[in-house]
Amino acid sequence: MDKRPIGVFDSGLGGLTTVRELCHLLPGEDIVYFGDTGRVPYGSRSAETIVKYARQDVAFLRTFDLKAIVIACGTVSTTSLDILSQENPMPVLGVVVPAAQAAARTTKNGKIGLIGTQATIRSGAYERLIHSANPDAQVLSRACPLFVPLVENGRFRRGDIVIETVVSEYLAPLKEAGVDTLVLGCTHYPLLEGVIAAYMGPDVQLINAGAEGARAVAGMLEQTDALAPNPSGGTYRYFVSDRQEDFSRLASIFLGWDVTEAVGQVDISQY
Amino acid sequence: MDKRPIGVFDSGLGGLTTVRELCHLLPGEDIVYFGDTGRVPYGSRSAETIVKYARQDVAFLRTFDLKAIVIACGTVSTTSLDILSQENPMPVLGVVVPAAQAAARTTKNGKIGLIGTQATIRSGAYERLIHSANPDAQVLSRACPLFVPLVENGRFRRGDIVIETVVSEYLAPLKEAGVDTLVLGCTHYPLLEGVIAAYMGPDVQLINAGAEGARAVAGMLEQTDALAPNPSGGTYRYFVSDRQEDFSRLASIFLGWDVTEAVGQVDISQY
Repeated sequence: MDKRPIGVFDSGLGGLTTVRELCHLLPGEDIVYFGDTGRVPYGSRSAETIVKYARQDVAFLRTFDLKAIVIACGTVSTTSLDILSQENPMPVLGVVVPAAQAAARTTKNGKIGLIGTQATIRSGAYERLIHSANPDAQVLSRACPLFVPLVENGRFRRGDIVIETVVSEYLAPLKEAGVDTLVLGCTHYPLLEGVIAAYMGPDVQLINAGAEGARAVAGMLEQTDALAPNPSGGTYRYFVSDRQEDFSRLASIFLGWDVTEAVGQVDISQY
Repeated sequence: MDKRPIGVFDSGLGGLTTVRELCHLLPGEDIVYFGDTGRVPYGSRSAETIVKYARQDVAFLRTFDLKAIVIACGTVSTTSLDILSQENPMPVLGVVVPAAQAAARTTKNGKIGLIGTQATIRSGAYERLIHSANPDAQVLSRACPLFVPLVENGRFRRGDIVIETVVSEYLAPLKEAGVDTLVLGCTHYPLLEGVIAAYMGPDVQLINAGAEGARAVAGMLEQTDALAPNPSGGTYRYFVSDRQEDFSRLASIFLGWDVTEAVGQVDISQY
């Protein structure tokens, strides 16, 4: 039993899809969430800048007494997981290891598609992890830099010609190559699940990296006997680096419920 | 005569469209450009955060001995011009005052359209300036949050259904209202001039805020006898807050020529 909260962070709002999964799996856990809304997006930045920002995000979260840190961001998970794990004394879990393992397990024809931000694709982290789990698997990857701004502007619904055009352009090479498994390697992408599933067809399995990450957290807490003492009623605290109002307005799209708690603002450059 | 350089800054790459205009108008001027590529975009952030970032941008530029500072960013011009002017001893010029004056001068039917980032529209700065120049003018404004990411991903050409759909959705209310003048209130938007002009039709005059800003700089330097001593051959220095490579690759889209100079990297949070 460990009643300390779990720290969760993301470049902005996408990580809330992982919080939603954590809430379903572990409704008794207290969560402290930080979204770096003052510097979002991370996915188009250099690895060097992403590592710097991620260290500051973790330094802020560690002002709380946490039992674990969850990187609810595909970009940070692929560029900074090893560094953050080495530098911090508590478990640091990302979304990339569990998602890569799930993909390696799921594929039948050995052809795995991967979509993510530019930084995620550039890192090559998914390829390395998938190959170590399944050396014969072929990974076809594609950066989808417009997905995050389109989702954040509410364009994620089927029938919207803008998102449908962009989805079909980005995913056409993966569909043509015959992948049977597709990793949604960014925590914004679960909102595009409907459009992507419709385009790829019923024979392609989608792997939601954020949900796989949440399952890995649940497994780790169970194995280390670190679950919260109460099975329900966990509390949520949210912090952002830009205006709180904008966060509260958009958060419900990702979270699936309204943020009624007070949201704190943090000067993240000071950490 | 004043041979000191002009400092120019933007949240990222858009301000290079203003540098291009400055180069045409004032080919003898030395320019120091800073693009805050590590924190771009500004337009979706709060006014408070934008002011904070803009102050740091100016503090970095002022490590050079400058004769003037040009805010080549619609968002910073509308949210922070007054503050930056008060805090700095040299002339600080934005794009909003000259663009508002040009719009007030240009309209014949008194109906002016304004497009910009969310922060620019929220500020109300254009409305105030246009009304003080032309109290009878009616300003219809519209935030276009997807234009910057679409332009930065190369989607600005006619015939691209994605940008054409987004342009027509954002601009339909302005077209229906019968504006005869449209302010492109963000320095990224000149790249969309072709698509926007085709949609709005030949009777609508487009005002390019960055180009108006560059003309205002030329006028100010002339009036104060502060032009560079040589009429041509100005030098350019570029600095960014993220990886230099990405800047050099994309800069030519905005600038119209390749950046061959070495590009410096700046830790902007230290300023």
